[in-house]
Order: sequence, then C-alpha cells, then structure tokens
Amino acid sequence: MTFFRSRWVERPEHVKELADTALPEGFESAGYAAGIKPEGLDVGLLHSEREHTVSAARFTSSALVAAPVVVSQEADLTALRAIAVNSGNANVSDGERGMATARAQQAAAAEALDLEPAQVAIASTGVIGRELAREKLVAGIRHAAGGMAPNAQAFSDSLLTTDRGPKRACLEVSLPSGATVRLAAQAKGAGMLSPKFATMLCFVQTDAAVSAETADLLTGVTVKRSFDRCSVDGQLSTNDSVFLMANGASGVEIDQQTPDELALGEALDALLRQLALEMVADGEGATRSGRVVVRGGLDLVEPVARAIADSPLVKTALLGADPNFGRILQAAGQALAGHSAFVVDLSIEGRQVVSASTVLDMDKSEWKALEAAMESDEVEFELEIPGEGGETEVFFSDLSPDYVALNSAYSS
Amino acid sequence: MTFFRSRWVERPEHVKELADTALPEGFESAGYAAGIKPEGLDVGLLHSEREHTVSAARFTSSALVAAPVVVSQEADLTALRAIAVNSGNANVSDGERGMATARAQQAAAAEALDLEPAQVAIASTGVIGRELAREKLVAGIRHAAGGMAPNAQAFSDSLLTTDRGPKRACLEVSLPSGATVRLAAQAKGAGMLSPKFATMLCFVQTDAAVSAETADLLTGVTVKRSFDRCSVDGQLSTNDSVFLMANGASGVEIDQQTPDELALGEALDALLRQLALEMVADGEGATRSGRVVVRGGLDLVEPVARAIADSPLVKTALLGADPNFGRILQAAGQALAGHSAFVVDLSIEGRQVVSASTVLDMDKSEWKALEAAMESDEVEFELEIPGEGGETEVFFSDLSPDYVALNSAYSS
Repeated sequence: MTFFRSRWVERPEHVKELADTALPEGFESAGYAAGIKPEGLDVGLLHSEREHTVSAARFTSSALVAAPVVVSQEADLTALRAIAVNSGNANVSDGERGMATARAQQAAAAEALDLEPAQVAIASTGVIGRELAREKLVAGIRHAAGGMAPNAQAFSDSLLTTDRGPKRACLEVSLPSGATVRLAAQAKGAGMLSPKFATMLCFVQTDAAVSAETADLLTGVTVKRSFDRCSVDGQLSTNDSVFLMANGASGVEIDQQTPDELALGEALDALLRQLALEMVADGEGATRSGRVVVRGGLDLVEPVARAIADSPLVKTALLGADPNFGRILQAAGQALAGHSAFVVDLSIEGRQVVSASTVLDMDKSEWKALEAAMESDEVEFELEIPGEGGETEVFFSDLSPDYVALNSAYSS
Repeated sequence: MTFFRSRWVERPEHVKELADTALPEGFESAGYAAGIKPEGLDVGLLHSEREHTVSAARFTSSALVAAPVVVSQEADLTALRAIAVNSGNANVSDGERGMATARAQQAAAAEALDLEPAQVAIASTGVIGRELAREKLVAGIRHAAGGMAPNAQAFSDSLLTTDRGPKRACLEVSLPSGATVRLAAQAKGAGMLSPKFATMLCFVQTDAAVSAETADLLTGVTVKRSFDRCSVDGQLSTNDSVFLMANGASGVEIDQQTPDELALGEALDALLRQLALEMVADGEGATRSGRVVVRGGLDLVEPVARAIADSPLVKTALLGADPNFGRILQAAGQALAGHSAFVVDLSIEGRQVVSASTVLDMDKSEWKALEAAMESDEVEFELEIPGEGGETEVFFSDLSPDYVALNSAYSS
C-alpha cells in the first residue's frame, strides 16, 4: 500500500517510496526506553553526521510555549546538527525547573554527539504541569547516543503517545537535473495526549544540499499547506514543532529558484500533507476525516473554514455520516457574525445541496445516495461564500464518544 | 426548592417566588399540539391584553438568520402585543417559501388576536433545512388563540425540544417606592436540538409600566449578563431570540433612572442569569456546569474566557472532575496566539494551583481535596492574565459521550 493513502494528496510522479524507516544518506538516529512513560520508547535522538548541515524550523504560535520550544528557539535554527526528543512529558508550566531540564536535555545531546548546545534542538510531548524526570532523560539521551543506527525505526517509535501507530516515510526524489536525493520525515500527533495534551512533532531529513534560505522557504510553504491545515479538536498545542535538516550527503546541490528546488518542494509538500492527514485520520477517537474547501472573500474563507472544521456539531454529524448541511451553514453564519446576512452554495461529495442559502429539494434516492457517499473514510465539503480572491481548505477529524472517554479519563 | 438554584446567582432580597407558571397581570398564553413535532405541544401563543404595552427584543448575531428572526426584526419591536412560537422546526434556509410561512405565522396570530401584524413577533426552534408545515402551524395558532389562559404552563411547554424540562419562573418584585409588580419569563435551550440545531428562546413579561427606553436598556444589560455569558458547545444559533413585554397592568409606573427601575433591573438580572444557568446545566448530555472568571487586559479577557469555555479538553476534564489545569492554560495560550509569552495565575474552587505560569506543588491530600471539590454540580475557575481593567465570566457545560451520541444520531 502506498504511503499516499489520502485522495487529497497527489503522489508526485517523481518520487519513489523506500522503506518507511529509511533515512537519507548521512543521518542516524536511535530510541530508548528511559522510563518517562510507564512503558515503551520515550527518548529519541536524531543526528546529521555532516558538518555542513542546513536546517529550518517552525513552532507553535501559542502564547503559552513549552520549555523545549523556548530552548530550541534560542538554538541556531539554520544549522542544527541534532534533535533530542522525549515523549511522556511535555515539560510545560514547570517554571525555572522545567527550563533547567530543557537545557540539560540539549546539553546532554550536545555532549554525547560532540556538538555545541546551539547545534541541538529539543522537543517534548506528553502530560503537562508535571516535573519531567531530568536524570532519566539525560541518561536516556546518553544511552541513545550509544546505539545510533542509519534508520528511523526506534526514533519514530519513541515520539508516539496516543498515536495508533508511527507516521513516517522515506522518499527517493528524482530531480529534473537527473540527480536523485532522499527525503524522509517522522511525525507524531493524534490530538490530545497521555491523556493531557495535544502535540504534533515532525522531523524532516534530506541528503540534498540546499541553502538556509531554501530550507526555510520550503519548510514555511509546506507547513502552511499541511499541518497548518489540520485540526483534530481545534486545540493549539504548546509544543508543536517541525524541524527540517538538509545535510548534502548525496552530493547533490540544489540551487535556489531552479526546477530542482521546485521538484524537492513538491515532494516535501506531498510528504507533509500526507503526514498531516495521518494525524487527522488518527485523531483521538476519530473514525473518519473531512475536508472543507471554502471559496470567497479573502479575509472570510479562513474563519469560516475553521468554524466548520472545529464545530462539534459538524464533527458529530461526520461521525454519524449524516449530511447535516444545516450545521455547516450555522457554523459559517457564526464565523461571520456581525456581517450582513450572507448567501452561500454548498456541495457535499461533489453534489450541490444548498443554492443561494436555500436547501435544494432531494428525493429519497438522492438523499440515500448522499448518505452512502458520506460513509467513506474521507468526506469533502465545498462552500462558496460572498466575495472573491480567497480559497482555503481545512482537514478535520470527526468527534466520537471515544474522544470524550479518552479525554475525561482520570489522569493523575 | 428555590428557583435560584445556582450559587452564581444571588436571589434578590426584594423578590418573592410565585408559582413558576404564573403570569403578570394582563398577560395570557396557550400551547397547542399542531403535529409539527411527532408528539407534544409545538405551537405557543403569548398575548398582552393591554393596549399600551412596551417591548424590547434581542436576536442572534449570526450572519445566517432564520426566517422568523427576519420577520420579527421588521415588526414594531418597542410595542409588541403578542408572540407566536413553534418548536420542531426552526424555519431556516428554506428560501422564499420559509419567509412566506413566517409571514403567515405572524398574520395568523395577528388575525386571531385582532392585532396588526407589526404588533406580533414570532420565533421558531427545531430542525433546519426542512419545510415548516405552514397549514398545521396556522391552524395551531388559531386553536391556541381559542384557548388562552392567564398562566404560562402550556406556552412554556410548547417551546421545548431536547430540554429535560421547562425553564420558567414568576416573581413578585417589591419596589423601593412600596409598590409591587410581577415579572415572569419562559425559556428554552439545551444546546443542539431535535437533533439538528441549537436554539435558545426567552420570553419575559412584567405588568409594570415602563418606557420603551427602560425596556430596551434593561433587556440589553441583562441579556449581556446572562444568555450572552453561557455556552453549551460554542455554537451560535440562527434563531436565538429574547423578548420582553411590559404592559403596565399593575398600575405601577416605573420611571427612568429611579430606585424602582434599578430594583426591577436587579430582579430581571437574577431571573435571566438563573435561566441561562438552567440552559447550561441542561446542556445536551451535560452532567456538570463550569464558570470561568478571567481578569486582566480589557481586550483579552473575553477571547480567553471563551477559548476555555469552548475547549473540548476543558469540557471533558470537567466531565471527569479532573483538575486538569494544563488544559486551561493551553486554551488561554491559544486565545492569545501571536501575543508575547504570558504569565497567569489560576485558581480552581478558590484554591490557587498555578502562580506566574508555574504549577504549584501539591501533596497527595491537597490533590485529593481539589478533585473532591470538582465533583460538585458547579465548578469555578479563576484566571488572572496580564493587563488591567477587564473582567468577564462564561458559564459552560461539560462534554459527555451523551452529547456525541445525541448529535451523531441519524437525523433524517
């Protein structure tokens, strides 16, 4: 089965899928069970062996940021050589103690890999408001550094919390110039975790040689089209982090504004979109994914798409495979509260159901066909609102009793 | 048991509770089972017998408004004499046909009560995107007009959809001048309904004589402090409507800016706050209510309080009686996304748990005590954020599997 399972991601013609645990040339990684979680791998270490490694990163926009995000933001984000990750504890709101632990996490990885602390980023995911066990973490990083391997198996497993399984891929990208490079990524994210908190993390590696500008540009553009477009429950994490590292180990240099840069960007785009869709499909308790596309006024499409994707009414209707378009109109109306009455068209799975804000009559067989179409794993909604120049999409999970059970379960 | 059940509403000293189905002098009402719902009362009619009746109204701010809201907004909202209501169908997004039905609803009530259409407001609640049966509705209004009684029993029952029970009260208000007037209200609202849509409706009557300015002022202020402060699931309805009618039948005239006006306002305030809290407590699937109080910057308190009240993580933690303060900090951080990192204090049930964004250490017995405090029907959260001059509160329901089951159930 192809990694590009979602119909909303086009598999680029110029990529070939390798083993999903493979890494590009010149990268190594490890995972270790340090006892931060009750069981399983919980410390991960990723390392680029090449001195001239270029990197880029993106972080949560929350006003409440975790200690590892603060420490990573102070590192040299365009020249990272390693990333030290832990799951089981997100290291948030633990004051100076949490900051000191985050710095110890960075320092331990730097020492074990013979790097400067500024060359090491860190990331954490799990429960918040609890002390992260510093000694277990530091010991785990040292153990991991002693067991590095040229694949991402243990590393990507070490990221997981309530995820149903690993989210990872490795692609061979054929460039227009005739050269090939590798591009890999490992991610985690299922909404709310452990059972406290949502965190999405993604680590991307390529053995192409790119400039810091290209790394930053491609990361920025593709994150906006992937993780920024998905929602399990509308709750922004304190720990979201995406890191890209390009080490040039393939010997293939990719210049700015060339067809090769575009081709690498296309591969990265498809990779991250599919990973984002994996997170939505693996949303806590999720049974089905939705995609809402909104076209209309430039400033209006985003709040309307978000309001629909985050509405518990739309999400429960998606769970029930119920073509309950009234709830979609209601959410749009709420997003535009204060605007004058608006006129919309709505299609579900390509079939128009609302024209100029009036529900179209449907006979029983048409209705049954619409319901049947909503039984699929991925359901698409398209909304036209007043105005022009704007178009956006948001991918979202349904809302099931399992989400509620998971997040109301006693957590301490 | 007193009507003022919530600890968040102070029972005014100067009110006496009458039978909850009583009406002020000079009002009459009726309910009728017209067959719009599969069973039960579904058409209600409320009438002020006094020619010089003053009124005020407030409606949903959604950009998608129901036909009855459009028709009511065109009526003479400062001099309404009657209101015709139906449950079972919200009359939304049915185009010209829906508008014609809403006008027929208004006209039928006007004719039956010998009024002008502009003296009649209307309101609907229930499923949307379906045709409202015009003939059943019109016939129901005629039947109701033939069975008017000086109490609100059948009328308030006719409003209900997924509500667990009626929401109504009648108060005798002792004014500083020594006179007494009556003040009554009937409301409905439980989140999402029938099983399509949320709608809250509230009808208020008094036999005091007040100016249109006083009616509008008191309605505006008290709605802002009651229904505007509550959320079952963050989903703004297309049909929300509040109507106040003052007919002067008590012979007591209340002048503007007098102690009597203030005393009537205080009674109205407590009445509407308790009704709003009834809606929260009766939220679909709800087991427990929360109140979040946020103090800090004037522009910041409202988005922060809303983000907390509407977070599915905070709501599921409330269901589980889990003092999961990390989720409250996360929601606040999300609401302030883009602002610089912020510093907050948090108390739960009067006990401080976070100081300067750092979680305070608690021993096992302190933790157990906090959990026990969260087992109550009403749980209070207080958050101090940066800045000054702002303070707000939002009342909210928890999120339970029953909410999901109710709203994902097959609806057609």
